[in-house]
Amino acid sequence: MVRGCIGEGTVVGAWKDRGVTQNIYDDEAFLAGYSTLDRSVHGLDGALEWPTIRSMLPSMDDLRVLDLGCGFGWFCRWAATQGARSVVGVDVSEKMLEQAAADTKSAAINYRRLDLDSMLVSDLDDPTFDLVYSSLTLHYLTDLPRLFATVAALLPSGGHFVFSAEHPIFTASRNPGFIENDGSRTWPVDNYMNEGVRTTNWFADGVRKQHRTIAGYLNALLAAGFTLTRLEEFGPTEQQVADDPRWVDERHRPNFLLVAAQRT
Amino acid sequence: MVRGCIGEGTVVGAWKDRGVTQNIYDDEAFLAGYSTLDRSVHGLDGALEWPTIRSMLPSMDDLRVLDLGCGFGWFCRWAATQGARSVVGVDVSEKMLEQAAADTKSAAINYRRLDLDSMLVSDLDDPTFDLVYSSLTLHYLTDLPRLFATVAALLPSGGHFVFSAEHPIFTASRNPGFIENDGSRTWPVDNYMNEGVRTTNWFADGVRKQHRTIAGYLNALLAAGFTLTRLEEFGPTEQQVADDPRWVDERHRPNFLLVAAQRT
Repeated sequence: MVRGCIGEGTVVGAWKDRGVTQNIYDDEAFLAGYSTLDRSVHGLDGALEWPTIRSMLPSMDDLRVLDLGCGFGWFCRWAATQGARSVVGVDVSEKMLEQAAADTKSAAINYRRLDLDSMLVSDLDDPTFDLVYSSLTLHYLTDLPRLFATVAALLPSGGHFVFSAEHPIFTASRNPGFIENDGSRTWPVDNYMNEGVRTTNWFADGVRKQHRTIAGYLNALLAAGFTLTRLEEFGPTEQQVADDPRWVDERHRPNFLLVAAQRT
Repeated sequence: MVRGCIGEGTVVGAWKDRGVTQNIYDDEAFLAGYSTLDRSVHGLDGALEWPTIRSMLPSMDDLRVLDLGCGFGWFCRWAATQGARSVVGVDVSEKMLEQAAADTKSAAINYRRLDLDSMLVSDLDDPTFDLVYSSLTLHYLTDLPRLFATVAALLPSGGHFVFSAEHPIFTASRNPGFIENDGSRTWPVDNYMNEGVRTTNWFADGVRKQHRTIAGYLNALLAAGFTLTRLEEFGPTEQQVADDPRWVDERHRPNFLLVAAQRT
């Protein structure tokens, strides 16, 4: 096990090549592209879905928080400033964790390098949390039931699990991208029922994601011992489109699936 | 209130034009077309989703069952043969209820003519049930939160609510119908985020349905006091497509949303 201290935040790695997740975020071209996104430059306020996700979160006051796929650490820092007692950020990307640690001043925040497809409860020093959070990470994982069981083991009864993922309508097609249909813009949905890998070219060639149905996400969640408390299918609001007409097509289909659940 | 006895089944009507639902099933052309469907001719076994729905139902043994949108009464009769103590079938279509009553021999089954968009708890003589069931009816209703609150009032804690509806991916587009995309079949999704009426020509012109998001269905269900126990997005299985190649396109997108919940 390699332990390293970078900046004020601490990165601890338990990196044993146990994982099977494609570590695309350490790809130089991908990371350079991803770093230009509003959500990378401006953090949570650069993510259109943030106000909705925020409304699905409990108060951070005195919570023990785990962030799965923490990336540059924006949510970890927000949780700490909102009063979280402790925050652990986990990611598979060494480069993102280096940046996260460099940008983090709070001693309440620790970063860990782990592959969520192989993460064990024993990888975490103090494996009890009040909130497990994950933003736009789970659609990269190959074994979601395994991760959900691990999350369930990290939470007491009533503990919160709030996550977002690319929406199944977004991930289904073999040819994703808006098309014209009888003079109108439309989004193609095909192969929806066939769960499994989808390969796209997004900032780099051959980015591998996993398409799952909404039922696939929710039934895995229920089977792991969670109660669904809220579901949102996020697309920009009419106000967000009025503020930035770039997003007009995005009202045709949801971008993201947002889920709030509690440990039964 | 009109009370009538047709065949062995009893039809009781509380039809006061309170409702706002389009009663398309009493349209002659629509009903003639609908009556040719496998599910109309062969009943439950003519519905591809039936084995999945059946697996989401509790044992019928001694249950008090309410069927919302009972149509020709196939489910009512099945529930009675499976041991249900009593079955009430509700529908807005006078013609379908006449056929249902004519085809029903069991004295445990009663039919009521009611519009689900205006149904009151007090419309039902004995308003406590163990299972409320609804097949492919809710996407016609204009006020789903109202109906869900009524269903919640009809069920004790632990009572079951199992329903199917046309899937939101199916209902979203203003131009529904498979199209070609880069040489492959695909289903268009547009206007998904805009819930509301969709008018289609299906056996008759101007059939009005309500498009809702999956989140719209599930959050209304949770708000009414239910716990989600299972969600299915039904498309034909690979075996069903192998048995009947007519359905091959139907694996590209789900036809039906199937939901199982229990009163909290």
